[in-house]
Amino acid sequence: MKHTLQQLAEGLGCKLLGDGAVVVTNVASLKSASSESLVFVDDAKHLNSALASSAAAVIAGQFVADLTTAKPLLISSQPRLAFARAAKILNTPDDERRNVHPSAVISATARLGKNVGVSARAIVGNEARIGDETAIGEGCVIGHRVEIGSHCRIDANVTIYSGTTLGDRVVIQSGAVLGSEGFGYVRDQQTGRYEQFPQVGRLVIEDDVEIGANSTVDRGALDETCIGRGTKIDNLVHVGHNVRIGHDVVIAAQTGLSGSAVIEDNVIIGGQVGIADHVRIEEGAVLGAQSGIPSKKVIRGKGVVFWGTPARPIREYLKELAYLSHSARQSR
Amino acid sequence: MKHTLQQLAEGLGCKLLGDGAVVVTNVASLKSASSESLVFVDDAKHLNSALASSAAAVIAGQFVADLTTAKPLLISSQPRLAFARAAKILNTPDDERRNVHPSAVISATARLGKNVGVSARAIVGNEARIGDETAIGEGCVIGHRVEIGSHCRIDANVTIYSGTTLGDRVVIQSGAVLGSEGFGYVRDQQTGRYEQFPQVGRLVIEDDVEIGANSTVDRGALDETCIGRGTKIDNLVHVGHNVRIGHDVVIAAQTGLSGSAVIEDNVIIGGQVGIADHVRIEEGAVLGAQSGIPSKKVIRGKGVVFWGTPARPIREYLKELAYLSHSARQSR
Amino acid sequence: MKHTLQQLAEGLGCKLLGDGAVVVTNVASLKSASSESLVFVDDAKHLNSALASSAAAVIAGQFVADLTTAKPLLISSQPRLAFARAAKILNTPDDERRNVHPSAVISATARLGKNVGVSARAIVGNEARIGDETAIGEGCVIGHRVEIGSHCRIDANVTIYSGTTLGDRVVIQSGAVLGSEGFGYVRDQQTGRYEQFPQVGRLVIEDDVEIGANSTVDRGALDETCIGRGTKIDNLVHVGHNVRIGHDVVIAAQTGLSGSAVIEDNVIIGGQVGIADHVRIEEGAVLGAQSGIPSKKVIRGKGVVFWGTPARPIREYLKELAYLSHSARQSR
Repeated sequence: MKHTLQQLAEGLGCKLLGDGAVVVTNVASLKSASSESLVFVDDAKHLNSALASSAAAVIAGQFVADLTTAKPLLISSQPRLAFARAAKILNTPDDERRNVHPSAVISATARLGKNVGVSARAIVGNEARIGDETAIGEGCVIGHRVEIGSHCRIDANVTIYSGTTLGDRVVIQSGAVLGSEGFGYVRDQQTGRYEQFPQVGRLVIEDDVEIGANSTVDRGALDETCIGRGTKIDNLVHVGHNVRIGHDVVIAAQTGLSGSAVIEDNVIIGGQVGIADHVRIEEGAVLGAQSGIPSKKVIRGKGVVFWGTPARPIREYLKELAYLSHSARQSR
Repeated sequence: MKHTLQQLAEGLGCKLLGDGAVVVTNVASLKSASSESLVFVDDAKHLNSALASSAAAVIAGQFVADLTTAKPLLISSQPRLAFARAAKILNTPDDERRNVHPSAVISATARLGKNVGVSARAIVGNEARIGDETAIGEGCVIGHRVEIGSHCRIDANVTIYSGTTLGDRVVIQSGAVLGSEGFGYVRDQQTGRYEQFPQVGRLVIEDDVEIGANSTVDRGALDETCIGRGTKIDNLVHVGHNVRIGHDVVIAAQTGLSGSAVIEDNVIIGGQVGIADHVRIEEGAVLGAQSGIPSKKVIRGKGVVFWGTPARPIREYLKELAYLSHSARQSR
Repeated sequence: MKHTLQQLAEGLGCKLLGDGAVVVTNVASLKSASSESLVFVDDAKHLNSALASSAAAVIAGQFVADLTTAKPLLISSQPRLAFARAAKILNTPDDERRNVHPSAVISATARLGKNVGVSARAIVGNEARIGDETAIGEGCVIGHRVEIGSHCRIDANVTIYSGTTLGDRVVIQSGAVLGSEGFGYVRDQQTGRYEQFPQVGRLVIEDDVEIGANSTVDRGALDETCIGRGTKIDNLVHVGHNVRIGHDVVIAAQTGLSGSAVIEDNVIIGGQVGIADHVRIEEGAVLGAQSGIPSKKVIRGKGVVFWGTPARPIREYLKELAYLSHSARQSR
């Protein structure tokens, strides 16, 4: 959608230097920018490249001061953030997403809010409730009694098991499965066979959570699995039953959280990390990629980076690696 | 569904202490129990909490002896198992699951047993055979000549490639893919290009197998991939072509089994374990989370826990970790 | 489909020894061969077993020389490759795959080539273009403006986000998600909340690429994610935004490639490998299973095998493992 720089400066709370009547329609990298693009620089050393690009205008940091250039500038204390927000403003809403496609199968007892989109072949179960402006993608299966808030985006071929609850502004990418049965079995001491422990709890996903493609989140066994407000989860992540994740947690691709793990607020978890059952990761800890936390461990340390299996503070781990490399080379 | 304690005691083979006319409708945790809930304790130290909960009745171990309490008790030698079975008895069968939805696309040459449910938008291919009381979820794609036994539950958006066979009482959770082509290529020595080695075998899944959400199981290349009776597989697990898994094996989330691996009966495999091609894990071995077994290795030892990459007995591995940590700290 | 050995010998460029009128209909292993099967041996020591099998004929290496046997032989300098190609010749094309099923939902503005198959319940978006002889599986969701080349096979329940481009002869197995939004966020320094960095780039998949079941490939953030010609990707692999993969790369199951990683031509990557952001794997390097490459590292060495986390040449890594095992055993 077209916006003038003047409009964007107001929307973003940026200071405008240059012609506010200039129109932009999209965000771009310096390399791919066209004459209607908005680009950004968050480091003074890239400013000249940005000014030399084909972009219509540049979002830059306060390092620019009152520089006068041929290209208009939007000045922000957080230029990367302003750029992200500009993209949202410029992103054309897809009107098609607000219709209910005739091939969708929607239960007569489901309740849909205003401007809800249900795409082709999506299924909405009995007594499901979907909030205003939410879009359900093609081929999605929304189970019975699922509650989805407003302004959510559920991409194509997502499956949400019955009884799951999603807050507002939640984004679920394609192929994700929410509310599946957890992995809990009881072994019969007489026959040696496994029987499923009841998996009859539920899954609660709070506001502003985003979950990547083909990730899986199990419902609680008897109680709840909960993903807290603002948490972002990448592709192919596994979240087991009864896990409790706090606010503003970031979890990179292919990480797995076993049953009853607790992840507190503001934790950052790299890719392919393995977190065993009943682990607690306390507020603000950082887990390096591929690290592993054994069962029932507590990881503590705001801003401390942990690495390895079993995970230890990265300083210690690097020292061990250096010692091992050195010693092995010395030995014969 | 409502059941009296008397009925449950008979169904479960438990000893009943107290009023057999009391009615329960669901299983619950001590925390979430309501006045119609059944809870359990498998340790004497939790008995008082259970008696103080809102539950209607408690399943407990023989440690209770002949205690007389205000709350009725069901006594079992395996209280956790009795609780799991009670949940199955109490779980209301969903009648809707036994219908064929008009939007399902079922081949004229497919054969469906009694009370088979085929949910909205599911597809059943030519000459497929589906046994009595089996439920096919929304959006499933069941290929040609697939055979599914009786009392199975195939959840929404599962894909089963042509020619796959499933036994009775098999549960497949959403998004799982069964019978896909394995990862086998031949490199042309002249051009350096890869061409697919034939992946024309089949996949056989025996009775009582359960497979988690978004897991993938490849068919055999020329012969069979086989998952043995009673094996339980978690979410996002990968099983390669020609793998043979025995009976009552447990495989946690995100583990991968490469081509032609053999997993014998009663093996337990943690999460994110990597098993290379042609590995053999012998009966009853236990592989800790994130461990790795290099190509062609044999792991032997009933009840022995292995850990690390390459996996070694956990005692050795822990000793190595302790030595390394100590030595690195000493060196400067 | 039936073929005579004479026809196959010509099609494969093999030398025929024996009766060219013999008919074969399928490829098989020695064990599973029937009287219409073609088998292969690439090692002289298996030749006798092959001759003793029930197979109609055997593809063998030049080690056979001019041996005269009761069973006809096809001699090739690359018998395994010839066998793979024979399988393609024998594999009956499924005519059904060339129809458009009445339950498919195809946009009026999509353009389909000759003999395109669109299976039941598949969806093809606005302005999508699908090349000749391509087959779209059941339940697939092909987004707006997606371009798919000719002779591709998109299996059931695949999701392709809008704007993605696929070359010719591409194979995508079930449940894969192509073109999803990458995992990039900007943290607001004032509120501590994460906002999505724009993920408005695209995904380009070149000719002859094959991608396994339930794998996920993110589009570029502002520019492109690109998977080069002939690259083969296994199941449950994650490819992040802006990744660039060269030609003839092989990536085994459950490996993850973080944002902006570069994988050059002819690299071989084992299963469960973790590659952090901005890593470069240079031409022809080999990464052992479960190895990990930290952020921004460059891995160099044609044909060199790297292992461990952080990955080092396998000789070094094995020496370290041996040293550690030995030293730990010595210490007390």
